[in-house]
Amino acid sequence: MRIALERDGKTPLYQQIEAYLRQAILAGSLPPETRLPASRKLASDLGVNRITVEKAYAGLEADGLVFSQVGSGTYVLPPPGPPQARAAPGAPWPLWQQELQARQPVASAPAPEILLAEAGHPDPIDFSSGSGDAQRFPVEELRRVIQAILRRDGIAALEYGERGCSERGYTPLRSTIAQVLASQGLPAGPENILITSGSQQALALAAQALLQPGEVVLVESPTYSGALELFRLLALRIAGVPVDDNGLQIEKLEALLQQQHPKLIYTIPNFHNPTGACLNASRRRQLVELAGRYNLPILEDDFVGDLRYEGRTQPALKALDPDGRVVYTSTFSKMLMPGLRVGFLVASGPVYERLVAGKRVSDLATSSLTQRALEAYVTVGRYQAHLRRSCQVYRKRRDAMLHAIKRYLSSGVQFSPPQGGLFVWLRLPGALNAEDLLPLACEQGVAFAPGGRFFPADAAVNAGYLRLNFAVQTPERIQAGMQRLGKALRRLKAGAA
Amino acid sequence: MRIALERDGKTPLYQQIEAYLRQAILAGSLPPETRLPASRKLASDLGVNRITVEKAYAGLEADGLVFSQVGSGTYVLPPPGPPQARAAPGAPWPLWQQELQARQPVASAPAPEILLAEAGHPDPIDFSSGSGDAQRFPVEELRRVIQAILRRDGIAALEYGERGCSERGYTPLRSTIAQVLASQGLPAGPENILITSGSQQALALAAQALLQPGEVVLVESPTYSGALELFRLLALRIAGVPVDDNGLQIEKLEALLQQQHPKLIYTIPNFHNPTGACLNASRRRQLVELAGRYNLPILEDDFVGDLRYEGRTQPALKALDPDGRVVYTSTFSKMLMPGLRVGFLVASGPVYERLVAGKRVSDLATSSLTQRALEAYVTVGRYQAHLRRSCQVYRKRRDAMLHAIKRYLSSGVQFSPPQGGLFVWLRLPGALNAEDLLPLACEQGVAFAPGGRFFPADAAVNAGYLRLNFAVQTPERIQAGMQRLGKALRRLKAGAA
Repeated sequence: MRIALERDGKTPLYQQIEAYLRQAILAGSLPPETRLPASRKLASDLGVNRITVEKAYAGLEADGLVFSQVGSGTYVLPPPGPPQARAAPGAPWPLWQQELQARQPVASAPAPEILLAEAGHPDPIDFSSGSGDAQRFPVEELRRVIQAILRRDGIAALEYGERGCSERGYTPLRSTIAQVLASQGLPAGPENILITSGSQQALALAAQALLQPGEVVLVESPTYSGALELFRLLALRIAGVPVDDNGLQIEKLEALLQQQHPKLIYTIPNFHNPTGACLNASRRRQLVELAGRYNLPILEDDFVGDLRYEGRTQPALKALDPDGRVVYTSTFSKMLMPGLRVGFLVASGPVYERLVAGKRVSDLATSSLTQRALEAYVTVGRYQAHLRRSCQVYRKRRDAMLHAIKRYLSSGVQFSPPQGGLFVWLRLPGALNAEDLLPLACEQGVAFAPGGRFFPADAAVNAGYLRLNFAVQTPERIQAGMQRLGKALRRLKAGAA
Repeated sequence: MRIALERDGKTPLYQQIEAYLRQAILAGSLPPETRLPASRKLASDLGVNRITVEKAYAGLEADGLVFSQVGSGTYVLPPPGPPQARAAPGAPWPLWQQELQARQPVASAPAPEILLAEAGHPDPIDFSSGSGDAQRFPVEELRRVIQAILRRDGIAALEYGERGCSERGYTPLRSTIAQVLASQGLPAGPENILITSGSQQALALAAQALLQPGEVVLVESPTYSGALELFRLLALRIAGVPVDDNGLQIEKLEALLQQQHPKLIYTIPNFHNPTGACLNASRRRQLVELAGRYNLPILEDDFVGDLRYEGRTQPALKALDPDGRVVYTSTFSKMLMPGLRVGFLVASGPVYERLVAGKRVSDLATSSLTQRALEAYVTVGRYQAHLRRSCQVYRKRRDAMLHAIKRYLSSGVQFSPPQGGLFVWLRLPGALNAEDLLPLACEQGVAFAPGGRFFPADAAVNAGYLRLNFAVQTPERIQAGMQRLGKALRRLKAGAA
């Protein structure tokens, strides 16, 4: 192989060799599987040091253009990243794949955040998120903690975890969570706690442990769309219980229990997603009592229960549970760092061991490093302090949102001010449809979550609702965003009229 | 409140106040729900600065002994970490919990590593692991990479991930994996790759997507025990296909396909767990052909396929797949860092979207931070270099293990030298039982994985096998460990005689 090299020192020789070969590979003049000359040979051909050639080959290898095989040589790879070629491009998929395709649920409508991005507004304001404000996540503290963990624990932080109990979660983290829960009035020992990959995994483990395909799960109507998607994928039958400003309408529950024979009730008693409602004290006691009488497990999703801005704290259903009726789930994701994917559940009795077995077969264990980082970061004091600050910030944002709704959307819009959490739930006037409003809103540079998507059935009947996340935007941007939404709503009304 | 303080400067005042209160809380003289004096009041009572009192309260709060409520005060918490009290200690569990208990599989035998630890040998040597050598994991490089990621990406590294496709995995990581796979002869595009929480989650997602309770899954007999546990928990019927030195005995497969009508075949073609065998080229082609003819999906588990020490690389089944019959899974866990929990699967056709939906409802997404760290760490060149070094190290360990088996265990023990991977699979002479050998071995300070646990059925019939992981110990320790195992085996023989 001959390569013309400039020996004036401006470009290092290895870079010239690398650039020549790269060009030849990408242009196809060195096709895949070509064996490059041995580095010793090419060095001698070009009159350069062997190290120079090896450095060039290493650069190509790092970019995935060639690979070396021990004792065999260096070979050109196919150009990186082409789509997987099907051997017979016209061939049909196997029958089992075709059946799978036929069984698949209808694709859901595109996410509001994607519609908003596609609308191309120069300064989009998004109220559609299901999380807290990412800007409040303590990145720098976390960076220092991870440094300290890897220095302190070394290899141990990267292994599966403790001998024989890694699937339950890192024991010191389970103790910390027990203390945080105790400080919130929910007594639990580390032996009742299972660490999960976010609270979504806790829901999935509980649903898989407690239900068979075709069985009935009761949910609030509306409820968290991620739970609905889970239950649908598990081929469960979903029955909805209506909600009002005090949460699930308990007086409608008993008839459903008798008619539907559900095997589980899934509920979000605090600052409900999407309505923001909080289940009142008397309904909490009645729900736990009914679950006992009807042999019904309760799956309690407390995703933002501690984000309360006013009013009295209600006990968790789990804290009222006399004998293991309730599986409680929560998460640090909404408060601290959703990308870490650490949640947990609390359960007592045989179901706890069943959930542990489910966790083990699902993914063996949650990342040891992130569990250790969370454990080192979270103390009861630090958690309460972060919570207090978040409550102060979010309370102001909620107030700004309520104010802006009255100012910009008032005519005929219905809503109830939430006492905590992340969401305001709005009902549009008349027969106006939130799915129709969304594209108009995106054009104006603002997005929300259309409400129909949160209902177990009758999305079309319930198309007049929408969910606004007030926690993710500053008061100024809330005002600007709601002004835009008001404009979009007027356009929708004008179009409907 | 009066606290006697020593003002001689030896112990800071805040520490004395904190110690006094801590003692009073733990002894119960300040019972739960007691409101502590306001810091201003206590400071004035004690004649100290208010900051001093606040520092003492903060210390107690960090330890979960008290908590503060905005505008209300500081309250004593129940003592941390007691087991969850059941309201009615004698009350039975709810009926559904009792049924769950009755359905639960019999508890498995204790893990060898636990028996070894309990035996209390001062220098235990463990061959029972299923992983590569943790000492070879690049902790320091990873620490630097995580630092760089958190500095570079900030908040983005801690959020759920990219707009609308976070459940598929971080796109640059999927591109990197596509390049690594291409370098190993398996062409795949990022759009065919799904990032999972370790390859265990890939197995779980595939099994859940493709099988209903009561349906039949074919497995090699023996096979990976974590897959068996998964299939059992999903209430599948498991049918075994015998293996020999060339892997799954393909000539016995067709009869099983006709009799059992399986909905999936799960196979580990490279350096099989636990036998170490490698499926030969002609059987690979026959298996893919049969899967097409019998409409049977293949789940290919390639957990250590690239750890080859000699012999010719075989193509992945996925690389022979003309039309989407094969779901391929692999992992970085065995090579790099098991505690990070990052694996992946490769699939084409409608099943890919079904697996993505399963991932989304299972845990939304894999940790964004660890995906970004892995992406920054892994390049094709670095991966191949790490692989080459690992192969050199592990080849020597395999040779040391084979040598030590011949030297210390020879009489009547059967085994086949593996060409790669982590395991040697031994058969004890006569009717000797590996479960009986294990406690004797642990007494001598050595452990292995008893073979019966890897069989889908007939653990008792197959009790003569054991699995040795040679990759996790140095040649010196392999020799010492096998010498101990030889001693234990002689004791077992003496007892059996």
